[in-house]
Amino acid sequence: MTTPTGHGLTVALDGPFHEIKNHWRSTITADDVVRDPSLPLPEARAWALEHLIDIANRGYAVAGFPGHGGTVAESVAHFEMMALGDLSLNIKSGVQHGLFGGAITNLGTSWHHEMFIDDLISCELTGCFAMTELGHGSDVSSVETTITYRPESDEYEINSPTPSATKAYIGNAGQDGKMAVVFGQLLVGKDNHGVHAVLVPIRNNNLEDLPGVTTGDHGHKGGLLGVDNGLLTFDHVRVPRRMLLNRYGGVGDDGVYTSPIESKNARFFTMLGTLVRGRICVGSGAAMATRKALSIATRYSLQRKQFRKPGMGQEVTLLDYQTHQRKLLPNIAKAYAYGFAVNEVSQHLQRVSEASGEDPSKARELETRAAGLKAVLTRWANDTIQVCREACGGAGYMSENGITLIRQDADIFATFEGDNTVLLQLVAKALLVDYKKTWGDMDMRGTAQATAKLLGGRFMERTTAGSTISRLVSNAKLKPESERLHARGWQVEMFEFREQHLVETLARRMRAAAKAPEDKIFDAVNECQEHMLEAARAHTDRTVLEAFVDGISQCHDEYIRALLIKICDLYALATIEENRAWFMEHNRIDGARSKAISTAVDALNLQLRGKAMELVEGLGVPVEWLGSAMLRDAGGQNISAEGVKLYSLRDGQPAI
Amino acid sequence: MTTPTGHGLTVALDGPFHEIKNHWRSTITADDVVRDPSLPLPEARAWALEHLIDIANRGYAVAGFPGHGGTVAESVAHFEMMALGDLSLNIKSGVQHGLFGGAITNLGTSWHHEMFIDDLISCELTGCFAMTELGHGSDVSSVETTITYRPESDEYEINSPTPSATKAYIGNAGQDGKMAVVFGQLLVGKDNHGVHAVLVPIRNNNLEDLPGVTTGDHGHKGGLLGVDNGLLTFDHVRVPRRMLLNRYGGVGDDGVYTSPIESKNARFFTMLGTLVRGRICVGSGAAMATRKALSIATRYSLQRKQFRKPGMGQEVTLLDYQTHQRKLLPNIAKAYAYGFAVNEVSQHLQRVSEASGEDPSKARELETRAAGLKAVLTRWANDTIQVCREACGGAGYMSENGITLIRQDADIFATFEGDNTVLLQLVAKALLVDYKKTWGDMDMRGTAQATAKLLGGRFMERTTAGSTISRLVSNAKLKPESERLHARGWQVEMFEFREQHLVETLARRMRAAAKAPEDKIFDAVNECQEHMLEAARAHTDRTVLEAFVDGISQCHDEYIRALLIKICDLYALATIEENRAWFMEHNRIDGARSKAISTAVDALNLQLRGKAMELVEGLGVPVEWLGSAMLRDAGGQNISAEGVKLYSLRDGQPAI
Repeated sequence: MTTPTGHGLTVALDGPFHEIKNHWRSTITADDVVRDPSLPLPEARAWALEHLIDIANRGYAVAGFPGHGGTVAESVAHFEMMALGDLSLNIKSGVQHGLFGGAITNLGTSWHHEMFIDDLISCELTGCFAMTELGHGSDVSSVETTITYRPESDEYEINSPTPSATKAYIGNAGQDGKMAVVFGQLLVGKDNHGVHAVLVPIRNNNLEDLPGVTTGDHGHKGGLLGVDNGLLTFDHVRVPRRMLLNRYGGVGDDGVYTSPIESKNARFFTMLGTLVRGRICVGSGAAMATRKALSIATRYSLQRKQFRKPGMGQEVTLLDYQTHQRKLLPNIAKAYAYGFAVNEVSQHLQRVSEASGEDPSKARELETRAAGLKAVLTRWANDTIQVCREACGGAGYMSENGITLIRQDADIFATFEGDNTVLLQLVAKALLVDYKKTWGDMDMRGTAQATAKLLGGRFMERTTAGSTISRLVSNAKLKPESERLHARGWQVEMFEFREQHLVETLARRMRAAAKAPEDKIFDAVNECQEHMLEAARAHTDRTVLEAFVDGISQCHDEYIRALLIKICDLYALATIEENRAWFMEHNRIDGARSKAISTAVDALNLQLRGKAMELVEGLGVPVEWLGSAMLRDAGGQNISAEGVKLYSLRDGQPAI
Repeated sequence: MTTPTGHGLTVALDGPFHEIKNHWRSTITADDVVRDPSLPLPEARAWALEHLIDIANRGYAVAGFPGHGGTVAESVAHFEMMALGDLSLNIKSGVQHGLFGGAITNLGTSWHHEMFIDDLISCELTGCFAMTELGHGSDVSSVETTITYRPESDEYEINSPTPSATKAYIGNAGQDGKMAVVFGQLLVGKDNHGVHAVLVPIRNNNLEDLPGVTTGDHGHKGGLLGVDNGLLTFDHVRVPRRMLLNRYGGVGDDGVYTSPIESKNARFFTMLGTLVRGRICVGSGAAMATRKALSIATRYSLQRKQFRKPGMGQEVTLLDYQTHQRKLLPNIAKAYAYGFAVNEVSQHLQRVSEASGEDPSKARELETRAAGLKAVLTRWANDTIQVCREACGGAGYMSENGITLIRQDADIFATFEGDNTVLLQLVAKALLVDYKKTWGDMDMRGTAQATAKLLGGRFMERTTAGSTISRLVSNAKLKPESERLHARGWQVEMFEFREQHLVETLARRMRAAAKAPEDKIFDAVNECQEHMLEAARAHTDRTVLEAFVDGISQCHDEYIRALLIKICDLYALATIEENRAWFMEHNRIDGARSKAISTAVDALNLQLRGKAMELVEGLGVPVEWLGSAMLRDAGGQNISAEGVKLYSLRDGQPAI
């Protein structure tokens, strides 16, 4: 059914994960992964658990676990494919295998692995990742739960000292979980060693609360009805000493605390760092769900007609309207861009994972990348799925057409695994780290020099396809002014200028803020918050564009490559257009150039409109998984031929 | 509980409808209007119907009906208050009393009024407004349903000739409706007189389909679970001749069709024009729901703390963060602006309604205003409710906290009563009407002259507070450059320039497009679509600002007035900031001025942060109606005092 062009695009976009993803497409059916959107809460939960157990026991949840086949990078690809099916199923798996299983894998040692991993893969042992508390969500290092070593019985005692210490919004805690990885302050004698994680059984096999544990159920949510989020409190619950996930520290046989990492803070952030996959998965899962929404809305826009052409009988197909092209095509281009970026970050994750702590700068870079991508992709997901809903009119609001469920489920992706606003600040802080080192006593001139040096250095280091990009940038300078917009090198320079300037000016402002009197520092830094978010977005956009360029360079089919180049043009120009106010404020473009960029976006939309069906085929969502009654009604035929013809004739040349 | 400042703001914002709105606040309880967000579909429907019947029978649904107390403008105020309670209840009422009742009132004659209105007010007679068809949503003049006059029995025969003629997404059609106002092509002999509306009984009192009628149920939707949207098809169903709503045309006793309006097109648009209240209600209902979301999120942001100030012990309240202020405060300012705009348009509706067709230009202006407001307010509503959800983090996603239900219910407001993209094009076309008249044979110079004349004329006529605004514009010119941004006259001129330039250039482009060869006209006009949307938004923004200025001029409490002036500054500057790329592209501001505008928005946010609680109190949402567990947990105390103090001390002057 898929056109050769669509297939070729999918191969390019899947990249190194094509085999895994195609295995899903060819062996997993809609019955396996597509939920009826009208299921009420109890049925949705039952569906998600049942289908998770089924999929896991068919071998789709072993990648990334010690002693099982498949790499960590591949586990992200599995997660992505499940997100194309259903986000409740996906997050149920994310809680069980990603968070609960990931914590045991990364924070535990071989005893924990041997004892628990097989059972958690099969879902025999259902578990929670209990970090967030009612009182502390974003500020997790301040959680109040305590894990106190009790030498008299060689146990840890887990306790919730206040109501705000209640673990909240915890997946699997509402109903299904039998065990929890509980994060709390580790107290040994008079010392607080900071946040550690401990395994605590919470329910017996009849799902009754164990003594000292009180579970609560958050009940109905704005979406993800298949995931049972809940509350946990602990009243002096004791577990054997070996239940502490002690890879980064714990009490030894001698009753004394030891850790390979001395600083409490560094230890906690190292522990969090090993859990970075979760953040990558949330960003990429949201992006995959958005691909599904775009596939539904675009296919609908190719079958739905409304209003007649003036003076002519025929009704106009929705996607022939300029406004409709604006809604969908730049977002399809972004779906490609973000897909390549996720492929790149997954491979980066794999490298860091294999290095097991040997290259801390790469690990830190990965965390920055993951945080930025998570924030940018989930924001885009929420906005774009809504655009898709509206692009389908009243039909888009009917649950049977598949979009509203995606919209509701994807919503919380902006919040969990790190609130987007907080994550972007983390990214900005990471970008400033190298500046900070230069602050000290340096005067204004010294800082400026150091800044200039740094700008040529680490934080602007091109992450992938470095030599290709250098060549593109050089080539762009040779092009006549009129062709510059479509020169990749010019686009890259625009992205780089934006990041560089934003980080440089942010560094100056933050330096000044740091010099404010003690009681004014908060206000001074607070005034830079919006600037921080902008810098973080600019950084992420730049790395996404680089990943796209890299993705194109990996594609050896000339025709597909030519299409990808157009799609990348649209991604780059639409992103520059979104930030055109900033570019004008900083005299990088004038008003005329700004208008020319918008005109170029419209023109690219019109060119790519004739290939719209192939572009959404390329996004790689199996048609049977779309779960959209309005598309089934139309027989699901490929409707793009007419469009291609229309625009080919119009321009007197092929659409591409 | 409410502060005097909050109360004063409510009085000003309620304006002429304060008495009605306060009556709701003092007599309607949360039990009457707040739905449990976790109710599954069948229970949600039952709840909505039951509560609608209760409220209607307590006299809250009679305004605007002939022979009952209360004006049409007041019926909008009633609708707005119900939207603050629950949107399903609100839309159920909108379908029953607004659309079904409104069609009978406006398209019917006294026989229809006497026969049906009492029963429909009490909900004894439940009804549908059956306009949209599967094949034709936005393009309603092309509906396929036929209403054929059968002289042999003096009846009309209603028929759905094709599957795409099925009436779709119709409220009350899924389950509860007993009658429908059905829109179809009126055929008499060989003549098609265009779209008319006829009353057709669809279900008996046991809610069984009547012969020839087939109803269907859309079932689960993305929201509004309390409203039973459904499908209707008619198989040669006959009704007596008097069932046609024949105010604007029908077959007389002599079997001959007559109408007071000759043109088929003009007749249909006159009929649609009488239904303009629905569009006003959808825009204002969405805006009221957004007030509720803003009230929840802002109150939460004043009780929730996260992270500690550097070097200090205390944790920071969310609303003290610059990014959080950016999320909420400009949107609170917009809530005020749109509230004043709705008050103004409601009074405009009242004047047009009282003139009963005597002033067609005012009626046309009202339709333009209603379409623009509906599109702008519902777009803002969707975006802002989502911002509120995210601003409450994980708690915002729990249904018990009240925001997700609003988000899901408000979604479809972007589509029903006119797709926003289509409505904005209608607005743009209306703005061009005066230009069109000048097109004819005129050469470029003649057009430019006519254009210039018109620009000083009708379409830019200041709609309210005209003399106040002229004075403000004159005053602004006297102010030193540095104070200009906060001069209302300067802001007004910016809004006016944007509208004027966009409409002028659109007119030129459309004129050129009209000269394209027949087969290229669609493409040429299509290229102007985004430009049309921009022009329509600019027009709407300008009239909103004028309504705000008018609202301020009606406020005689000096302190409240001073606050409103600040809020209006924030509305105006935030709107200019959103469009700063356009202003730079058109050389109206340079980069430095653009940055100064953003800085001014941040500064206003900081100033108004100290009054945040009073500002949301002023939005007039009864605290008991917020339906938010997380606020109840905190005891609902007024938490703003600290904020006021903090910022008063900081600036060394009162926050305002």
